[in-house]
Formats: sequence, structure tokens, C-alpha cells
Amino acid sequence: MALAAASRGLLHAGSRLGRREVVDGARRFANKRVLVETEDTSGIAVMKFKNPPVNSLSLEFLTEFVISLEKLENDKTFRGVILTSDLPGIFSAGLDLREMYGRNPAHYTEYWKAVQELWLRLYLSKLVLVSAINGASPAGGCLMALTCDYRIMADNPKYTIGLNESLLGIVAPFWLKDNFVNTIGHRAAERALQLGMLFPPAEALKLGVVDEVVPEDQIHSKVRSVMVKWLAVPDHSRQLTKSMMRKATADNLLKQREADIQNFVSFISRDSIQKSLHVYLEKLKQKRG
Amino acid sequence: MALAAASRGLLHAGSRLGRREVVDGARRFANKRVLVETEDTSGIAVMKFKNPPVNSLSLEFLTEFVISLEKLENDKTFRGVILTSDLPGIFSAGLDLREMYGRNPAHYTEYWKAVQELWLRLYLSKLVLVSAINGASPAGGCLMALTCDYRIMADNPKYTIGLNESLLGIVAPFWLKDNFVNTIGHRAAERALQLGMLFPPAEALKLGVVDEVVPEDQIHSKVRSVMVKWLAVPDHSRQLTKSMMRKATADNLLKQREADIQNFVSFISRDSIQKSLHVYLEKLKQKRG
Amino acid sequence: MALAAASRGLLHAGSRLGRREVVDGARRFANKRVLVETEDTSGIAVMKFKNPPVNSLSLEFLTEFVISLEKLENDKTFRGVILTSDLPGIFSAGLDLREMYGRNPAHYTEYWKAVQELWLRLYLSKLVLVSAINGASPAGGCLMALTCDYRIMADNPKYTIGLNESLLGIVAPFWLKDNFVNTIGHRAAERALQLGMLFPPAEALKLGVVDEVVPEDQIHSKVRSVMVKWLAVPDHSRQLTKSMMRKATADNLLKQREADIQNFVSFISRDSIQKSLHVYLEKLKQKRG
Repeated sequence: MALAAASRGLLHAGSRLGRREVVDGARRFANKRVLVETEDTSGIAVMKFKNPPVNSLSLEFLTEFVISLEKLENDKTFRGVILTSDLPGIFSAGLDLREMYGRNPAHYTEYWKAVQELWLRLYLSKLVLVSAINGASPAGGCLMALTCDYRIMADNPKYTIGLNESLLGIVAPFWLKDNFVNTIGHRAAERALQLGMLFPPAEALKLGVVDEVVPEDQIHSKVRSVMVKWLAVPDHSRQLTKSMMRKATADNLLKQREADIQNFVSFISRDSIQKSLHVYLEKLKQKRG
Repeated sequence: MALAAASRGLLHAGSRLGRREVVDGARRFANKRVLVETEDTSGIAVMKFKNPPVNSLSLEFLTEFVISLEKLENDKTFRGVILTSDLPGIFSAGLDLREMYGRNPAHYTEYWKAVQELWLRLYLSKLVLVSAINGASPAGGCLMALTCDYRIMADNPKYTIGLNESLLGIVAPFWLKDNFVNTIGHRAAERALQLGMLFPPAEALKLGVVDEVVPEDQIHSKVRSVMVKWLAVPDHSRQLTKSMMRKATADNLLKQREADIQNFVSFISRDSIQKSLHVYLEKLKQKRG
Repeated sequence: MALAAASRGLLHAGSRLGRREVVDGARRFANKRVLVETEDTSGIAVMKFKNPPVNSLSLEFLTEFVISLEKLENDKTFRGVILTSDLPGIFSAGLDLREMYGRNPAHYTEYWKAVQELWLRLYLSKLVLVSAINGASPAGGCLMALTCDYRIMADNPKYTIGLNESLLGIVAPFWLKDNFVNTIGHRAAERALQLGMLFPPAEALKLGVVDEVVPEDQIHSKVRSVMVKWLAVPDHSRQLTKSMMRKATADNLLKQREADIQNFVSFISRDSIQKSLHVYLEKLKQKRG
């Protein structure tokens, strides 16, 4: 059975996580933090982030997500995946700062490898990926959206999307920068990254951070109709085309993956950075009361 | 006499094809498939595609086209060339699928080399190239337009332009992809290439696939006035600037030309691809029936 | 004292040029051709070009400018610099053709090295650079603007900005081309560079050559409020981000700096180019009476 196919590579240890249920006539492949809803007939699966309170990309979330994605990737039933959030008002708040604060270098190494893995798997996915951005999507939330083939955002001015790392005192990794430059161009990326800009839907659309903005209650029907259009293209030529467009950017990370990890670990271990993260985390705690 | 100058290189065998006539006071350099109209005073030549029914880029068309272009290139009388179609409603339908179906590897090799040669000669031309896109322009038709310094399209919603290879089950070559990315940016190219999108004039303009859209009956006067503006720039600085902009992209093909040919020949020889082309050609036959 | 810190490197010979005055409560660091106005409290310095009649980038101007910039760069008091003109109606007319005409190769070498140095220091500056383009800004004037983090132009249709080298029979250097492509994209840059286009404010804004156009009498207040926004970002993450965005482009020059100088010297020494410059300079003389 394809869904049960053993996952390979880095994250094989997690292959026991999956449980299968049948809910409302659809197969549901439920982990704790990523709900996978599938329909056999359409070839479409939906991955719903459910990691309260804000879908932070914790190490556990990343591990489950990549395993779930790999299963879909290896199951010929599925040709397209919709990424969306199961939590109201938040797509994903991005990297989990608690994984980056007060831990040891071995932990930082493991965490950053998992972040790289998430991006690589998504960016190079053979599946059609469409994101239904139904909530705020800063930093790592924006990262997941940027890897998709098409991005649809709910038209709610409270939601913003962007790479705001610089405002937190940190820097987006070069491969995410490359992905961003590919998406909105060099100049717009340079400005947005330096200023740590978060864009409401209308501005995100104008700049090309997202491809379409729709009323919030229509986002799931819209994302489905867009997916149908993408699935009308023969898989093999679409996949070869996608690979041709993205290979150079992904190779840029693959050929210096270790150096990128070392760079992250040494940066995040600095006293000044740990101090900034401490201040920020304390603020968050107070805010959440 | 410059127009009769022997053509060099790959395509020298075709140098006997040219016949010259005088028509309506203009010199006309007529092959079977490419009409070349020249005016001594303006420095402008017009190359009109005439390969019925749809200006397919057959091996013969490619050979004649490159020879004609080279003659203009070597004749100091000419500084600019207008590319347009002599057939109503079609600029060019692109590559000739009959050259890619049911032949042997030697033929595929010869054909792909000629396609590469067409692109290289156009993309690196010292002449100012302006296209008057007066009809549909999918795939290889779009390729020719993309090599130009300026693209003007007739405002007829029946005409579309784009690289629709993925819908035919094939993939645009990487160097055409590079040319496309240079023209409309990475994101727009990624989406358009994956979906095999063909754009009507207004959308093509908005995306930057073409530079200007004009009423169909004004396209030839417009293209001429645009050419005059380009010819106001000194040739030597314009040519050096053009080369600076395009050299890296062209070198990308030149340094792996053989590998690109091998890649094409092995791809097109696959049973699955041959089968797809067969189905498509049968459909075309019935349609034209 | 930081402002008096010895300047390093290529241009150390100029370190005696600076004189300091106190004017209107602000420190003013006055050379002959570049006025530097500083306010200790805001962290902002203003560099005003004052090289009549048209702020040409003479060798002396370049030398003074780079020394002044380096002093600001080395003084931790300052985090942002505003570039603007002290002369009415002209931001900068660009390279000084008199440095490129009728001199010897040693002079051309020295001059081009200083032009490269200007661009490198500006493009890689750790400071936030914002330009208040309050006058015409062709060629080298545009070069200075393009290195900034943000560009604001006065809304006066008499002012134009762009790289018009090709119309003068010369060619923009490849590194300025790279900077231009990063700013407005490959296609727009290819067209603008080939045609030597100069854009009035509205077109410059549309194309992305500048980021904002404001009424002429508001440009200095606007540039200041923009600077405040940029200075809200922590310096260290902003600087790392800026470096990540620009390093590859700057390295492209750094690794072939000598070849670029040789190329310039041999090009500018050609009889044909010297003749063109002579004709152009004579025209300018007559025009200025």
C-alpha cells in the first residue's frame, strides 16, 4: 500500500507516526500536528497545519510534515497537495524560537537540518503545491508559501505575509533569499528583506508575494479550482519544467548544506543573538498572558 | 556584392538558394519560404515568413531563414530587420512536429542543431531585430519573437503568444527558458512554462511577453517607426551593449550545445513521446481534413 | 575622534582635505566639492554634491567623495547618509568627459579606478543610503542613485534619470549593468541601456528606477522620514541582509577589477572614441557659451 510506503532518507525514523482514519468519506491521515485529508478520485490531498497556538515550525512539526509529504509524494494516487492551516487566523508563525534559544549546538544542528529539509522537499516536490494562506504568514510561514506553485491568500487585512527576520535581529538564509528573489525580483526582495516587511493581502498581490487574493470564505473552493487547472497539464512535462526552473536554486543549498548549518549554529549561539531571542520570547509570554 | 556574400559555417550548403527580384521598386530577395524585402535607403530589411499553412519551423525553413539572416548580417547596407509573417492569422506555429516524429536519431540531431542555430543567430544578432507579430505565435513562434530587441503584437484577441510545450508533453529547452526568464522574470516564466500558457495580446503586454500592442492595420507602420528610433543609436555602442546583456545567456548554450542535442534526441526518441506526437499529429490531420 | 579617523586604502592621500565648521548648530564637514552636514542626535548625515556647474564626477570630486564617505562609515555616530545635490536643477551630470579625453593611459587608469571605487564603496556601504534626486541624473548621476537603499526623486518633468551611455557612443560598465538589472529587471535594463533612455520622474517610478516621486519642495522632509523608517531596523541584521543581497554583484567586479580597467583604458584610447568625445565636448562648450 503506497500510503504505508516506508519513508526514506533523513527522516526515516518518523515512519511509525502515521495513523489512518476514515472521516466523512475521505481518508484522513492524522498525525498530531499535520492533518492530511485525501480524496481518492481527484488526486488531491490537503495538508492542514494544526500545531497550536500558532503553527510554529517546531522540530516535531517539521518531522511530521516532511514524513507526511513524502508519503504523498510516493503514492501515485496523488498529483497535487493543498497547504493550509487548521487554526483560525494563522497560517504559520514560522520557525519556533524555542528551538533556537537556550539549547546546545547539537540541537541547533538538528533543527536547522530539519528546516533545510522542509524547504528542499517542498521546493523540489514533484507534486503540484498550492497554498491557501488563510491567516498570518510571517517568516517560516512565508517560506512554506514561497515553495508552492501557486499562492492564494484570504482577503483579510489582519493577515500579513513576508520575511521579517531582520526586525528580529536575525537574517533569512541565502536559499530562502534566492527563492524570494525568484518570486518577486531582486530589488523588491532587497528592500523587503532589509526592512523586514510584512504585507497585507493587497500589497502582497501587487508585489507578487502571492498570486491571487480571494474573500476568506471562498479560499478553499478557489484553491481547488486552481488545482484542477494545474492538474490538466501532463505530469511528466510539468515536473521536468518545474525541475528545470528550480534545480539551480536548490543545488545552491545542496552543495553547501553543511556550511549553511555551521553558519546558523555559530550565529544563533552568539550571546548577543541569544539575548535578543530571550527578550523577544519574554515579550511573547507576557502578550499571551 | 554584399547580398551575394557566401554564407559561412554550418549552413553553407544552402548558399545557392537565393534568387533576386525587383518588385515595386524594392529589392526582394526571394527564397521559397522566407521573403526578404529590402530598401537601400533606410537600412531596414523585412523578413516575411511564408511557409504555408502555418509557418512551421521545418528544417528547410530554418536553413533558408538562417542563410537569409546571415546575408543581411554581412551586408553593411542593413542595420535593422523586421520579422513578420506573410500568411494571414499566423506568425508561426513553431517547431515542425513532423521533423520530430518517426525519423531517426541522425535526423533529430540535424534538426535540433538547426533549431539551436536559429536561436543563437537571432539572439546574438548585431542587427536591430523588431518583430511584428501579426498572428498566432505559440512555442517556436514565440521563440523567434523573444530573440528580438522589441516586440509589437497586433491587437486581435484570436492571436495568442507563449511557450505551450508542457501541454504537448514536451519541455522548452533550457536556453529558451533563460531567454524567457530574462524577458518576463523568473516567477512569471515558471508559472507560464509549467501551465503551457498562451496569452492574448492584452495579457502578453501586461506580462511583458510583448512590448506593445497596436491595431492590426497599423502594425507595419508602427514597427517601422519603432525601428527608426532604435536606429538613431550609434551601432557600435548599441551592439556592445546588446552583447553585454546577452552573452552569458548565449554562452550557457554554446558551452553545452552537444549535451543539449543528445538530451533532445534521447527525449524525443522515447516511445512515450513518439506516441504523444502521433496522437497529436493525427488530431491535426483530422482538423485540417 | 572618529570623524578625523585616518582613511585607509587607495585614497589615503586625500585624508588632509577635511575641514570642520559649525553652521546653524549642525556640524559641517566641508571639502570643496562635497558638503557633509551632520547631526549628532539623529545618526543621519547629508552629503551634498557641490561641484559646479553640473556636479561632474571629476577625479577630485570622486576622491573627496570617497574620503568623506569613509569617514562617516568609520564613525559610529552615523547610521544613515542622504545623498543629494547642493546645485539647483542637477543631481549629477555623471562622469567628467574631460578626464576621459586627451589624457594618457596612466590618467585613464587612475580615473577608472576611482570610478570603480566610488561604486564599490557606495554599493557595499554598511550605512543606510537614501538619495534625494533633486535634479537631472544621467549616467554617473544615475550610478550613484542606483547604489542607494532607497531613491526619492523630485517631481519635476525637466529632471530625467537613466543610463544614456550608448547615445554618447560609449557603453556602461558590466557592474553598473548588473546593478541596473538587479534594480529594474533584465528586460527593462536591456531596452533602456541599448536605447540610452532617460526617464522623467513618473516613468522612472513606473519602471522602478526610483522608489518614490514627491513634490520638489517636500523631497528633503520626505527623505528624512524614509531614513527614520530604515533606521528602525537593527543595524547588524540589516547590514548582513544587505551584504547577502549585494555581495555576488560586487564580487563580480572585485574579481576582475584589473581587466575592467584595461578594457576601459583601451576602449577610451581609441581614435574613434576620442573623436566622438571631442565632438561632444565642443558641442557642450558652444552650448554653455
